[in-house]
Amino acid sequence: MDSDEADATNRTAESGDSPDRDRAAVARRVERLSSHLNPPPELFINGGLAVAPCAARAKKIEVDKDRLSAYMRGKYRDVQQGVYDYFNSRPELQTPLEISKDDHRELCMRQLMGLVREAGIRPFRYIVDEPAKYFAILEAVGGVDMSLGIKMGVQYSLWGGSVLNLGTKKHRDKYFEGIDNVEYPGCFAMTELHHGSNVQGLQTVATFDPFTDEFIIDTPNDGAIKWWIGNAAVHGKFATVFAKLVLPTHDTKGVSDMGVHAFIVPIRDMKTHNTLPGVEIHDCGHKVGLNGVDNGALKFHSVRIPRDNLLNRFGDVSRDGKYTSTLPSINKRFAATLGELVGGRVGLAYSSVGVLKISVIIAVRYSLLRHQFGPPKQPEISILDYQSQQHKLMPMLASSYAFHFATLHLVDKYSEMKKSHDEELVGDVHTLSAGLKAYVTSYTAKSLSVCREACGGHGYAAVNRFGSLRNDHDIFQTFEGDNTVLLQQVAGYLLKQYQEKFQGGTLTVTWNYLRESMNSYLSQPNPVTARWEGEDHLRDPKFQLDAFRYRTSRLLQSVAVRLRKHTKNLGSFGAWNRCLNHLLTLAESHIETVILAKFIDSVRSCPDSGSRDALKLLCDLYALDRIWNDIGTYRNVDYVAPNKAKAIHKLTELLSFQVKNVSKELVDAFDIPDYVTRAPIGMQATEEAYSHYTQFAGF
Amino acid sequence: MDSDEADATNRTAESGDSPDRDRAAVARRVERLSSHLNPPPELFINGGLAVAPCAARAKKIEVDKDRLSAYMRGKYRDVQQGVYDYFNSRPELQTPLEISKDDHRELCMRQLMGLVREAGIRPFRYIVDEPAKYFAILEAVGGVDMSLGIKMGVQYSLWGGSVLNLGTKKHRDKYFEGIDNVEYPGCFAMTELHHGSNVQGLQTVATFDPFTDEFIIDTPNDGAIKWWIGNAAVHGKFATVFAKLVLPTHDTKGVSDMGVHAFIVPIRDMKTHNTLPGVEIHDCGHKVGLNGVDNGALKFHSVRIPRDNLLNRFGDVSRDGKYTSTLPSINKRFAATLGELVGGRVGLAYSSVGVLKISVIIAVRYSLLRHQFGPPKQPEISILDYQSQQHKLMPMLASSYAFHFATLHLVDKYSEMKKSHDEELVGDVHTLSAGLKAYVTSYTAKSLSVCREACGGHGYAAVNRFGSLRNDHDIFQTFEGDNTVLLQQVAGYLLKQYQEKFQGGTLTVTWNYLRESMNSYLSQPNPVTARWEGEDHLRDPKFQLDAFRYRTSRLLQSVAVRLRKHTKNLGSFGAWNRCLNHLLTLAESHIETVILAKFIDSVRSCPDSGSRDALKLLCDLYALDRIWNDIGTYRNVDYVAPNKAKAIHKLTELLSFQVKNVSKELVDAFDIPDYVTRAPIGMQATEEAYSHYTQFAGF
Repeated sequence: MDSDEADATNRTAESGDSPDRDRAAVARRVERLSSHLNPPPELFINGGLAVAPCAARAKKIEVDKDRLSAYMRGKYRDVQQGVYDYFNSRPELQTPLEISKDDHRELCMRQLMGLVREAGIRPFRYIVDEPAKYFAILEAVGGVDMSLGIKMGVQYSLWGGSVLNLGTKKHRDKYFEGIDNVEYPGCFAMTELHHGSNVQGLQTVATFDPFTDEFIIDTPNDGAIKWWIGNAAVHGKFATVFAKLVLPTHDTKGVSDMGVHAFIVPIRDMKTHNTLPGVEIHDCGHKVGLNGVDNGALKFHSVRIPRDNLLNRFGDVSRDGKYTSTLPSINKRFAATLGELVGGRVGLAYSSVGVLKISVIIAVRYSLLRHQFGPPKQPEISILDYQSQQHKLMPMLASSYAFHFATLHLVDKYSEMKKSHDEELVGDVHTLSAGLKAYVTSYTAKSLSVCREACGGHGYAAVNRFGSLRNDHDIFQTFEGDNTVLLQQVAGYLLKQYQEKFQGGTLTVTWNYLRESMNSYLSQPNPVTARWEGEDHLRDPKFQLDAFRYRTSRLLQSVAVRLRKHTKNLGSFGAWNRCLNHLLTLAESHIETVILAKFIDSVRSCPDSGSRDALKLLCDLYALDRIWNDIGTYRNVDYVAPNKAKAIHKLTELLSFQVKNVSKELVDAFDIPDYVTRAPIGMQATEEAYSHYTQFAGF
Repeated sequence: MDSDEADATNRTAESGDSPDRDRAAVARRVERLSSHLNPPPELFINGGLAVAPCAARAKKIEVDKDRLSAYMRGKYRDVQQGVYDYFNSRPELQTPLEISKDDHRELCMRQLMGLVREAGIRPFRYIVDEPAKYFAILEAVGGVDMSLGIKMGVQYSLWGGSVLNLGTKKHRDKYFEGIDNVEYPGCFAMTELHHGSNVQGLQTVATFDPFTDEFIIDTPNDGAIKWWIGNAAVHGKFATVFAKLVLPTHDTKGVSDMGVHAFIVPIRDMKTHNTLPGVEIHDCGHKVGLNGVDNGALKFHSVRIPRDNLLNRFGDVSRDGKYTSTLPSINKRFAATLGELVGGRVGLAYSSVGVLKISVIIAVRYSLLRHQFGPPKQPEISILDYQSQQHKLMPMLASSYAFHFATLHLVDKYSEMKKSHDEELVGDVHTLSAGLKAYVTSYTAKSLSVCREACGGHGYAAVNRFGSLRNDHDIFQTFEGDNTVLLQQVAGYLLKQYQEKFQGGTLTVTWNYLRESMNSYLSQPNPVTARWEGEDHLRDPKFQLDAFRYRTSRLLQSVAVRLRKHTKNLGSFGAWNRCLNHLLTLAESHIETVILAKFIDSVRSCPDSGSRDALKLLCDLYALDRIWNDIGTYRNVDYVAPNKAKAIHKLTELLSFQVKNVSKELVDAFDIPDYVTRAPIGMQATEEAYSHYTQFAGF
């Protein structure tokens, strides 16, 4: 809420009309006034709906969508185009609006086969050596049908990735080719009915039998049934099964639990495709979305597999049942095992931005097309001319750009990590991927609903995509790590860094800012800068980053104090739970800070001035919108004075208006072809959208 | 965010264990301490996860779900049970998880027929005389399949309602029976491709032909195609078509546009069901949800209908083409026409609460069932024991109760209005229905996503309902008035009241509070009460209502000033748009205030003390959670001091914890049978939920 009774934004955007001389004079005048902006200099009134910048800033932004697009585009845009072209040339492989679950699953398999065997795009080859290329393919494939993206992820990143990352040479030699060409469709059987997030609580058992040199896989109770296993209901031949490794011992206990390990278990006959003896498979049935993926439930009744089927990179069992590992403890081995699976999160964060872009493109184009109401006796205006619609969509457009750069950065870091295996980088990428996956997928999920609602009734037509995008994307918040759990990992890592700092340790790169800002936190907010409210100041990246970092540092400091206090009485688990909301806010705050820092860098690095201006506008909107959303926090510690809070609010409305003026170019620059966005109301040539739509209905 | 570094909530809930004497002493001590709660009195530590109330307050709440349920239950619970029983006895009428669009439409029609002709439930009979009963049936039917609820609403509330409310006796005599027994399935053809919210912009034309005594209905361009018309694609025989009435004149213009009127247009042959000449119908196709409803697009090519088919309650055309009306202007007639349709919004608000209840029931029961992680070497804890899960679900549970009472109140007011036709009441109900429809449906839509996410992977199984509930409910935000548009109507009405106040007029009942609080707004916030932070104070309904009303009054006052200022330069339309976000916040703030006031009343009126205690807890959580969500506003004007803001935050966490302790009883008290909620993970006997779920998958 918070009105701007003394509205300072009533200035024109059209100073380009006045001669340079006048403009300079105006600029000087505004410069003088800008330190006491309240009440405002109402320099120009152009009588329309314009909410426009102060003249000094009113450089008209000229965005060349091609130049901006060239800057945004990663080096793998060509391979993405290859994916688009292939499916565009094969209409029979496109998913219709209505399709039964069973048909969808078969179609999805044909799509994957076509991609790999016909189009010759072999994602598996890049998983290890060129992950950025793999993620680019994944994003493009997700634009075709998200089920295909997930099916591909199950095959290559999960099933394939487990073989590559948790296995050793013998496994690679045996399975690589079959996984690559989809002759060996496989599953990643980690989650159980009773255990998802708590992987260490898995109950499936793999007992070594030294007499036959085999492991015996068992599901001890119904709670341990492997559940939600992709590729299991129909297509899978193999499954990487996560189970507690149990070894016989010669003491009184008789057995020893070595913790969770991964095993390759054949589940269907290679020739007949019949389910193998001891393996019970049921269909998990209809899902909210992603019905092209055949999720199944697996129950094992003393299924025997050779000892070689243990994926033995981090721990092995010898012929005589002795356990060996290069890692010293169960916890270390568990961390190493899960750590190798971080690529899935990178892919989800990256693909989620792809979904967000498609959604924003459709919503913005339709909002430009749609006209409704207007001033008396004048034509109706576009609904994007309404302040409320700008408020819904423009910070979202800014966020799409922000997330684009942040996830590209994550992919780069991940690629670097896969090459260097630098330990500090591993921790950094692990936390960054957890945080970005959680933050971005939550944001995208909410945005899909906002976009549907912003497009009114026509947004509810299935052909316009919001429904399937939302239903398919929804589970991004849950799989490969529940978002609430992942954010806690981020918070935990921050606390670890915090403790190390105070013990004189070094901070990893992403957290370096904490050292500096933690000191400034320990002092009081500056009462002078808390009152600065000029546009120059608010749009200064230093102010923005300082504000974000201050908040994170403060949250970190205060939660550390609270945790210490509560641990005495509640124990560490109880204390953690007592501070849980606080910890989640801390994690989000940190991730927002990382995203902003990367966005500011990306603005600076942009060589084209028009594009840079547009990106700067978006970056400022991203930053100020987030500050405004949490204004209570800033006010509560007097980090900003009341009038500064109002100035921030006004400026976000102004920036939303300015972004609106170039919003068509900004969504075009995402460079996603009409035959990928596919929504009739979201065509690039908006003037044709209605006729596409009536034709679709049969007129 | 906003940590509570000096956490004051570390007190036990279990004071019931200590003898009365001790308790009294403790109470006195707490009383003394409560004025300087910072640092807190850590009276008891029970070592667990407990976040518990100060001992003085720690009366253990005993909720008897049956007594609470009896208080909640409207007088139409029996007719709802009749609906449930009927569909429970007819499994072939239950909607399967997978069904094609065409089959779903036919099933939905069979469901409606069965309800009316077999179960003998005749909703149409109650539309006028006993609307509360109609809404109760609508809510129950929506629980069976939301498509059926909407199909029923189209038939009775929209098509039937237009005949009853906009027509005269001749129409009632001719159509009542056929509408009632579904021999005359009909449509409500208002929305056009290019015009939804702006009904006055409709372009369909009805020209009177004095030679044949007929109206000629025409679609002048594709933008005027009637779009999204329920019952049109398959089942409809008639449509109430909204069109500009054009009369021939004897002046040089030749014709005169009398504004939008409603006409009954037969669209299919009564016997053959063939589309009638001049009527072109296409299928609007798949929707995000509600695919049991056959939405179609209607284009009229000079379709002739008798003059009698004008629904002529508010305006009529004589045999010689003269227009007569009891209402003086096009605008008045338009307002009267639309005003009669307000019942649809009442029904949507009411049904939306029904959806919210089902969703909350499932999410809460599953969160109690699901155990994940726990303290070292101890059993796992229920996920509802996590502060983050309480934060997601407990304010939502409180809101379900709040909305329950608010929408029952709306139904009462609406029923009263239908009887009295009191003009002030009409305005009040119109605004209240617009506001509650917008506020409640937006809240429910967001909550459905939160619930799905809170239930993790198992929430993504279609059988557990969140997907279909969300997809079906989604459009509640758009149809019968786009929420963003409806909130503007609320804001407009508030401003009108505001102006009248200052001109000495009277305020209608719902807005009465503004007179008083407007005065208090004009003074500064009280710096003493701004510092009160005791639990007694924060849980005092007077503090809560004052805070809500202060916010509304302040927003109203400030937006009025801004509008006046901007109107000078931008005109009234431009000024409105310039203040649009502000106006929407005002409307929401007002609606939240009305809901709170009604909730407080309902707590007071509850005769059973255990139920009253539980309701009081929920009411406090509703109030404080909303204040906390907008804490920036309150801080910015120093309505609350920083420490009070922290105390409010802490108390919401504490209240969420306390509500959690009785959450099972609170969702049971909604009294919705398992065969209506239907989700295996949401069974009332939570211990059986997993086995229901594995059985569903075939184990």
